[in-house]
Amino acid sequence: MSLAARSVLDETVGRIAPVDTAAERAARAAFSGKAKPPGSLGRLEELAGRLAGIRGAAIPGEPTPAVVVCAADHGVAAEGVSAYPQHVSAAMVATIASGRAAVSVLARQCGARLVVADLGVRSPVPHPAVLDRRIAPGTANAARGPAMSRAEAERALTAGIDLAGELADDGIDVLAVGDMGIANTTSASALAARLLGVDPADVCGRGSGVDDAGLARKVEVVDRMLAANPVPSDEPVGVLAGVGGFEIGALAGIVLGAAARRTPVVLDGFITAAAALVAARIAPASTGALIAAHRSAEPGHTVLLTALGLEPVLDLGMRLGEASGAALALPMITSSIALLRDMADLDEVTGG
Amino acid sequence: MSLAARSVLDETVGRIAPVDTAAERAARAAFSGKAKPPGSLGRLEELAGRLAGIRGAAIPGEPTPAVVVCAADHGVAAEGVSAYPQHVSAAMVATIASGRAAVSVLARQCGARLVVADLGVRSPVPHPAVLDRRIAPGTANAARGPAMSRAEAERALTAGIDLAGELADDGIDVLAVGDMGIANTTSASALAARLLGVDPADVCGRGSGVDDAGLARKVEVVDRMLAANPVPSDEPVGVLAGVGGFEIGALAGIVLGAAARRTPVVLDGFITAAAALVAARIAPASTGALIAAHRSAEPGHTVLLTALGLEPVLDLGMRLGEASGAALALPMITSSIALLRDMADLDEVTGG
Repeated sequence: MSLAARSVLDETVGRIAPVDTAAERAARAAFSGKAKPPGSLGRLEELAGRLAGIRGAAIPGEPTPAVVVCAADHGVAAEGVSAYPQHVSAAMVATIASGRAAVSVLARQCGARLVVADLGVRSPVPHPAVLDRRIAPGTANAARGPAMSRAEAERALTAGIDLAGELADDGIDVLAVGDMGIANTTSASALAARLLGVDPADVCGRGSGVDDAGLARKVEVVDRMLAANPVPSDEPVGVLAGVGGFEIGALAGIVLGAAARRTPVVLDGFITAAAALVAARIAPASTGALIAAHRSAEPGHTVLLTALGLEPVLDLGMRLGEASGAALALPMITSSIALLRDMADLDEVTGG
Repeated sequence: MSLAARSVLDETVGRIAPVDTAAERAARAAFSGKAKPPGSLGRLEELAGRLAGIRGAAIPGEPTPAVVVCAADHGVAAEGVSAYPQHVSAAMVATIASGRAAVSVLARQCGARLVVADLGVRSPVPHPAVLDRRIAPGTANAARGPAMSRAEAERALTAGIDLAGELADDGIDVLAVGDMGIANTTSASALAARLLGVDPADVCGRGSGVDDAGLARKVEVVDRMLAANPVPSDEPVGVLAGVGGFEIGALAGIVLGAAARRTPVVLDGFITAAAALVAARIAPASTGALIAAHRSAEPGHTVLLTALGLEPVLDLGMRLGEASGAALALPMITSSIALLRDMADLDEVTGG
């Protein structure tokens, strides 16, 4: 690992504190005293407590959320594992930036800032709203060797750490994160299989919509990716370099950087959960900063959520990525904060 | 039934048209062509289709939702079936109107107009924001005879029909509905047991939080309510009069009135589902206008949702009432409309 990258990564990991259980308990207790039967707001009460535990105190005002989409291309697309051709990654980055993708609409609906970062799609996207954080024009084909070098994996991680830091400096206090990258469910499946030691068939799904033959091919390709990259499961940066992706590395870095800044991270679906698992293997305490937005229709997602100890907020059969599920869950997050802040206490109402 | 009330009710029922399946199919097809894998937005695609089917066309602009809370007191509270004393109903109506109840916060968060209607809490609530639609100062104790007269049941239904009409005239195109009334889960359980012909124990839950002994008492009280009101299950207005409540009657009326005006109705939890069942027995086509916001922690709710053929959007362990679950689901509804309206088509993105 390069000295500079190791220094940023080590310093970030060193700053990740455990969840503030006293702040969490205080928020839960305050919520219990609100004008309603105890516990009757269900998951919203738990969310408000969790957010306070991550921040170290209940968020006092209206939160300032951002939706961050990290994009990159995957060399393994050459193996025919996706229902879409590779150039769709760049086209979708442009669509997101121009405000006409699903996540653009959903971020606008909930009043969140939308941030799109190019970590390495094949052709750069000439749009002023796209942040250039490019590592390289797509990864190599991981079915034939490492997707990227160790140095590139480190740069992807630090790109995410830097982005989380910039957004925190800018006043963002809730981060919803997602991905764009044709074939990236294949890379995420390989990461999950290696890091969790499970069978590729247990963490491969239809992604953007492959048929039965496509699914069988995907499992076979993940087998080859793992064979071509015999990195031990306890070397998360090495596994990321072998079978991951630039946007997955950046998303893992965002989790680490956000956790170090006590910024809650709302995970989207399968890809972001795989990234969070990479982060968890680098710094186990980083899982304390996570909130799972939804349960994706991608079957491997549930395997990852279980490994991360997360119970999702929504279950709407979504499997789009782009942070669409995370953006859709943001109103639940902000509502839980508003309820804790603005509801009357029960004793004010009953005069007790 | 009084001639005037019968005329309003009959006329409303006569105006309820079936769901416009052509409009629903057109919206689903348009959604399928958006820049995303087919079906990858899951329930959101279905919601957008359903809304178009109810309205008769996709909602073209930003929807104008209202959250309507109907409140009343229940004489059966005297049987000790609730964890809270009866005066809490009026106190909570005042809290909702003053903007500090859960539903007030949630309506504000999603930008919906909040409407609070008093259908008959024991003591009138002197707050300018509370609509006076009072039938009487609380129902009688249904464990000892009818909760209300037939004429009162008809007035409650027409109050709801009138309110739905006023809101539609005022440009409201999505209605989220909920309830407030100490002991009203007991009335809703009795309605569900009689209308569905199921055992009271299958539709009684802990409501606002009674213990095991309280739950056993509640089942016993519902048994007595049904015995004291031997109205056949195929006389929904009679069943409503026997074991229902003024706010439940008004909510059933809102469903009928909204269905007649092609206004989608987002149901909250157990009480509103019982009201929707009353409406369904009066006019079966009215269920076409319904969207179930969430699955309540109250066990009888699932029984009612099954009977109504509804699959809820959210499942957050909530059991508060007040339309809190319906208000929380509104961003999903408005987002599904925005996605259908604002997303790019796939062929624009891929150049295909």
